[in-house]
Amino acid sequence: MFCLKQPTDAAWAAEAVRQIDSVLVDHAHCEMKAASNSLSLAARHPGDVAIVRGLTDLAREEIDHFQRVLSMLDARGVAMGPPPVDTYAAELRRVARESRSPAPMAPIVDRLLVGALIEARSCERFKLLADETACDGAHGGEHDLWSDLLAVEARHYRTFVDLATRAAGGARARVMARLERLAELEGVIVNALGRGPVGCSRATIHG
Amino acid sequence: MFCLKQPTDAAWAAEAVRQIDSVLVDHAHCEMKAASNSLSLAARHPGDVAIVRGLTDLAREEIDHFQRVLSMLDARGVAMGPPPVDTYAAELRRVARESRSPAPMAPIVDRLLVGALIEARSCERFKLLADETACDGAHGGEHDLWSDLLAVEARHYRTFVDLATRAAGGARARVMARLERLAELEGVIVNALGRGPVGCSRATIHG
Repeated sequence: MFCLKQPTDAAWAAEAVRQIDSVLVDHAHCEMKAASNSLSLAARHPGDVAIVRGLTDLAREEIDHFQRVLSMLDARGVAMGPPPVDTYAAELRRVARESRSPAPMAPIVDRLLVGALIEARSCERFKLLADETACDGAHGGEHDLWSDLLAVEARHYRTFVDLATRAAGGARARVMARLERLAELEGVIVNALGRGPVGCSRATIHG
Repeated sequence: MFCLKQPTDAAWAAEAVRQIDSVLVDHAHCEMKAASNSLSLAARHPGDVAIVRGLTDLAREEIDHFQRVLSMLDARGVAMGPPPVDTYAAELRRVARESRSPAPMAPIVDRLLVGALIEARSCERFKLLADETACDGAHGGEHDLWSDLLAVEARHYRTFVDLATRAAGGARARVMARLERLAELEGVIVNALGRGPVGCSRATIHG
């Protein structure tokens, strides 16, 4: 899907649906972190109005999704609790830092491409969750959530790639080459995290 | 106004209207910081759904205002630039930390009350700006902005006080006593910053 090099393990979705409360808690924290991250990026790059507006649009939408997931958790009587350790995102940022070429683009380009990859992986997994819950009346509310979110994450993926291209002065080919490289590294991370504890949206659930 | 102990210097508004671009830039950064701060507080206190929802509602509204001010700056051909030094907010947080009583309430109560004071001071100054621009056709767009914002800041002030009361387990009298004390300290800060360079919304303009 999109630029992803490594599909999520086939057994992931069924396990995630069995641990739906953990998936929802994890995703609430992911949306909150995504909103904070978008605002932080915007504040540090005030020079380009289109990038600032794009990132603040993303932040607002991520807050909306956070609140939607929060309401579902509240209805299920599940507390959010402190944020789970997000090994996936931390590893992704680390490999992005460590794989910068001798003539790297501005750091914001990598930050935006890491954002694009996180959205792409979420989108892929929400598609698996939507499929897994499609024919089961017991999971109707969840199915609607995953279906809505996968469409939005797909749009956010494209927005991040477009903003990265803009931040790179329009050098689309260089940006796409860098995205390909980061996607390979992301695939290695997902493979390493994907067995044993089941990876959920972005972080890791302990099964 | 509200809990404020010290009115803004009478000469402030006329000077601020003469430096309107700086006021708008400063306020754009203030809204961005306010949104980030609300999200950060929400993420660190996930245990109370009402507080988390209240803070994320505030963050979304602050992003809306940020974008409105950004559009005005863009239309005026003014770049946001890096954030100005925010001596006022930094001093307010410092005096809140240093004035904690021997039996203090949870730190989040002070963080929320500092938020309330910042909103109260913004509201007071937006009222001055709205009055200063009311009868001048050249400032019609600005007048509408300040009028709208002062109403919202007043509402945000009340929201912060209500959330602080909730975070303090409903101990309204203790919360209001603490707010009174912080308002006295805020008045000292405003007095110290108010002469010479004119204080604007929250930070300082160099006149």
